Amino acid sequence: MGAPATLEGWYVYHEFRTINWEQWKSIAETERVRIMQEWSAFANAQANIERDRKGSYGQYIMAGHKADVLFIFMRPSLAELNQLKADLAKTSLADMSQSVYSYISIVELGGYMAKPGVDPALDEALQARLKPEMPPHQHVCFYPMNKRRQGEDNWFMLSEQERREFMKAHGMIGRQYAGIVKQIISGSVGLDDWEWGVTLFADDPLQFKKLVYEMRFDASSARFAEFGPFYVGHRASNESLAQWLRI
Amino acid sequence: MGAPATLEGWYVYHEFRTINWEQWKSIAETERVRIMQEWSAFANAQANIERDRKGSYGQYIMAGHKADVLFIFMRPSLAELNQLKADLAKTSLADMSQSVYSYISIVELGGYMAKPGVDPALDEALQARLKPEMPPHQHVCFYPMNKRRQGEDNWFMLSEQERREFMKAHGMIGRQYAGIVKQIISGSVGLDDWEWGVTLFADDPLQFKKLVYEMRFDASSARFAEFGPFYVGHRASNESLAQWLRI
Amino acid sequence: MGAPATLEGWYVYHEFRTINWEQWKSIAETERVRIMQEWSAFANAQANIERDRKGSYGQYIMAGHKADVLFIFMRPSLAELNQLKADLAKTSLADMSQSVYSYISIVELGGYMAKPGVDPALDEALQARLKPEMPPHQHVCFYPMNKRRQGEDNWFMLSEQERREFMKAHGMIGRQYAGIVKQIISGSVGLDDWEWGVTLFADDPLQFKKLVYEMRFDASSARFAEFGPFYVGHRASNESLAQWLRI
Amino acid sequence: MGAPATLEGWYVYHEFRTINWEQWKSIAETERVRIMQEWSAFANAQANIERDRKGSYGQYIMAGHKADVLFIFMRPSLAELNQLKADLAKTSLADMSQSVYSYISIVELGGYMAKPGVDPALDEALQARLKPEMPPHQHVCFYPMNKRRQGEDNWFMLSEQERREFMKAHGMIGRQYAGIVKQIISGSVGLDDWEWGVTLFADDPLQFKKLVYEMRFDASSARFAEFGPFYVGHRASNESLAQWLRI
Amino acid sequence: MGAPATLEGWYVYHEFRTINWEQWKSIAETERVRIMQEWSAFANAQANIERDRKGSYGQYIMAGHKADVLFIFMRPSLAELNQLKADLAKTSLADMSQSVYSYISIVELGGYMAKPGVDPALDEALQARLKPEMPPHQHVCFYPMNKRRQGEDNWFMLSEQERREFMKAHGMIGRQYAGIVKQIISGSVGLDDWEWGVTLFADDPLQFKKLVYEMRFDASSARFAEFGPFYVGHRASNESLAQWLRI
Repeated sequence: MGAPATLEGWYVYHEFRTINWEQWKSIAETERVRIMQEWSAFANAQANIERDRKGSYGQYIMAGHKADVLFIFMRPSLAELNQLKADLAKTSLADMSQSVYSYISIVELGGYMAKPGVDPALDEALQARLKPEMPPHQHVCFYPMNKRRQGEDNWFMLSEQERREFMKAHGMIGRQYAGIVKQIISGSVGLDDWEWGVTLFADDPLQFKKLVYEMRFDASSARFAEFGPFYVGHRASNESLAQWLRI
Repeated sequence: MGAPATLEGWYVYHEFRTINWEQWKSIAETERVRIMQEWSAFANAQANIERDRKGSYGQYIMAGHKADVLFIFMRPSLAELNQLKADLAKTSLADMSQSVYSYISIVELGGYMAKPGVDPALDEALQARLKPEMPPHQHVCFYPMNKRRQGEDNWFMLSEQERREFMKAHGMIGRQYAGIVKQIISGSVGLDDWEWGVTLFADDPLQFKKLVYEMRFDASSARFAEFGPFYVGHRASNESLAQWLRI
Repeated sequence: MGAPATLEGWYVYHEFRTINWEQWKSIAETERVRIMQEWSAFANAQANIERDRKGSYGQYIMAGHKADVLFIFMRPSLAELNQLKADLAKTSLADMSQSVYSYISIVELGGYMAKPGVDPALDEALQARLKPEMPPHQHVCFYPMNKRRQGEDNWFMLSEQERREFMKAHGMIGRQYAGIVKQIISGSVGLDDWEWGVTLFADDPLQFKKLVYEMRFDASSARFAEFGPFYVGHRASNESLAQWLRI
Repeated sequence: MGAPATLEGWYVYHEFRTINWEQWKSIAETERVRIMQEWSAFANAQANIERDRKGSYGQYIMAGHKADVLFIFMRPSLAELNQLKADLAKTSLADMSQSVYSYISIVELGGYMAKPGVDPALDEALQARLKPEMPPHQHVCFYPMNKRRQGEDNWFMLSEQERREFMKAHGMIGRQYAGIVKQIISGSVGLDDWEWGVTLFADDPLQFKKLVYEMRFDASSARFAEFGPFYVGHRASNESLAQWLRI
Repeated sequence: MGAPATLEGWYVYHEFRTINWEQWKSIAETERVRIMQEWSAFANAQANIERDRKGSYGQYIMAGHKADVLFIFMRPSLAELNQLKADLAKTSLADMSQSVYSYISIVELGGYMAKPGVDPALDEALQARLKPEMPPHQHVCFYPMNKRRQGEDNWFMLSEQERREFMKAHGMIGRQYAGIVKQIISGSVGLDDWEWGVTLFADDPLQFKKLVYEMRFDASSARFAEFGPFYVGHRASNESLAQWLRI
């Protein structure tokens, strides 16, 4: 049956944390200011790396009890993400929060995206998608997913032709949201507990619901998708994050 | 097969917390009084927002070990709910309790509720349902749910006609409880871990059992519904909450 | 298909707690004595309420790591159970233990138990079953359960006739244990995470195993029952509880 | 279809604990010595009870993060096991460790083991199996299990004849390990979260893998068994336990 | 149907830990240096044992929130692994971290690997695979797995011939990664919660994804494999581990 060819780009590390509010409130205001200045320096360094096209970075305030903040890092190598994990842990803000979820994956595109006769490494448009800047949209949505392998509904037992048709219909829905919802698909088979991570970006978070709901009625999701937890939040500048945390 | 059209209203944030009783008892009575006064001010501000029709608010004392209190907030935007999460965390009562569950969703009505030729934004009755005041009933029940996608019982693979018939029978049961149980359905596809949140309000909590049990024998639930945890409790004024917490 | 009629009695609150032994041992013996005296007063007040037929109360020492003690409360209203939760939390013994599980339900009998032409509220035998005293047996067993809704084994898609036949066979087994095992069935659809709670009482705990095992071979369990955690323990007087906790 | 007859012996309490190493290291060496002397006295008392044939006792050092030590107690009554739980909690070693898992069951043999015309209570060989001494082997393996009730694979819907044939093939495999692996089957229907607990004893732990793997290809396991967590460890004398804990 | 013959080698203990960063940062730099020197001595002792072919050892920095470090130990006996668990717990670095996951298994090869007429104990190539040195590759991937026993997809109900054909196709994929991905399969039936542990080693972690993804389309995985959590990381020398932890 054969695995479809894939193209891979940067490794991605989603880090979800909750704030230890009681501890945060217990320290002096001057200390809180210092911690946020230190964090801004950390975040600015990330932004510089993104400007130099050596990685990407986004920070978000998340809804609900599952997470308070999300930091997304992309880098060319897994070892760099591991170094970033330690760098983050060494910040003072890390002491005021705890890691509650994360996701390790690598940006993935279908192999059919490679133009025949063109070296993917030299296809700039393709490279821009494999090593993406963090989209500027105001809201983010993340969820991991599997393709189902259950009785008659076994994605991995379908023929290549069947899979292609399912994915085509699936892609048609995505295309209706072009310019409204930006998605980054990252593969995590062999890297984390689900097969893919899906990160959506939109200015209007209602579009996350609209898009995912519409896709759920499509057979490739209806019959074959299994979903992990869903996380949703809004983009935070250093200033808005500091403001959100201000006591 | 096509997703059914939906109408969306306010975003909803259910926040479930447990009280840290040992800590609560360890502080001075004057401090406990101050904390409850602070909380009353917070809750009154929420009530004012509800009065101004810029959001909704309800507070409840919950049964069993899963949660002690439930706060329900509705707002026009997700970012406002995120701000509310921080505002709540900054209260002193938050230090005496911990967030144990939450739910993020958006009030949802079937698209067929929109009258032909009428702009939904101008349909006052519709708007009142999309941006509802918190019902005044004495008891609350909350549970999240999915429509099943399992072998022959795959809701999202049904035809629109089949789904409509199932929902019609389902609705008939609901209508028998008109005036007894008030329900607010909120969609959470792409926003939280289940597809819908269901919040029921009734003066007599036995009616929650009667309604949900009756629906379970209806094919749309029997074959297609998957349920998350159930939470039940009673409405609490600032005074009754303070009384409940009085040592 | 229609939900079967049910009769409901008192609300039931099972509260499972573990003892914080290290903390308990760390306090002075005089303090431990005081705490148990306070607890005895609380428990005696519960017993008085039971004597007045305004509720029921039982306390048990539980086996294994899942819980050390179980307190069962019954009351006419959910709000009373919520008040009891706070009353319990305010005792000193609560500070020395933690709530690890609970169950919220309401005593339930089949509607066929109502005699034709007799107002159930005036049927004393029926009322005694709906608002039961805590059985005096030496051992207790609790577990929550669902009726399955899975492919061909969907209880809620059976005809009323089929369900009645299954339950009849099921009831036959129960009747063989008359006088040996006393059971209280409480419904929790819409109230807690499973559909029913089953509380069994017997002097000989081996009879719990015998009864549940025998029922498991009956089709209504074999095909249709899904079980939650099982808890087993023995009845504790104030004196035996204090003795059990004595350091 | 009728439950098969069973014979029951002693109640069994498996107690799994992890050591709080940091706490253990933080106390004085003299205190650690005292704690282990106290523990040896507790364990010796257990051994005396075993010598008097009033119960059984085994202690083991366990592999992996799930547990550090396992204590197995057998007693004629559940209430004695509950008393033992408190006795154990009152030792100083309990303060240096925490209960992370347990299992409550009762030694069980098939009813066909009873010789016709002989009172099982007077059959010494049978009684020795129902009230077993702890086997002297160097290694232990424990896991709980259910018989499956899933679609076509529903153990409890099989005829007695079918079950007997499955169990016969299953027993043949066990018999090949006679003298190599000793097993104690204990029933836990109505007592704990799985239907049976299986405790295996062998000098060579590889034989646990060999036996369980071989059985997995037998239809009674392949189609009908569901397994809980597996725990494996080696027998520890008071001296070897103290040595293992020596800082 | 008969279990396939297997050959077993060394017992394997995967120990996953997270760093308590706040605690680690709170101690003096000199203390941190001392702790890492102590750890280096521990790790060097492990390396010496590996050099003497009496066991194997590897240490890794792991990606994501599930674990910060992974230590892999192999030894001829389970009791030695239990001793190692205590030895590790007694290091100071253990006080600064906590065990969050582990896996207990034994290196396993198919019985068909034994050359006819040759005593496996004397087959050096075979022994090198059963008692492997830790591969020198820069990255590691670990996941536990089961063969499925579900309805039509029941691996253990297949004929020997069917299993052999499935495994042959599976092996073909593995062989394409010869020299790129090194795998150590260890059996854990009867030892831990899944049936096998898979540890992959590669210089390029992308090859973990490529290999596991390709295999997922092979029927032996597509229909029959169930996967536990996936962990990925990079090899760490004592120096790079100390550097990673440097504040």
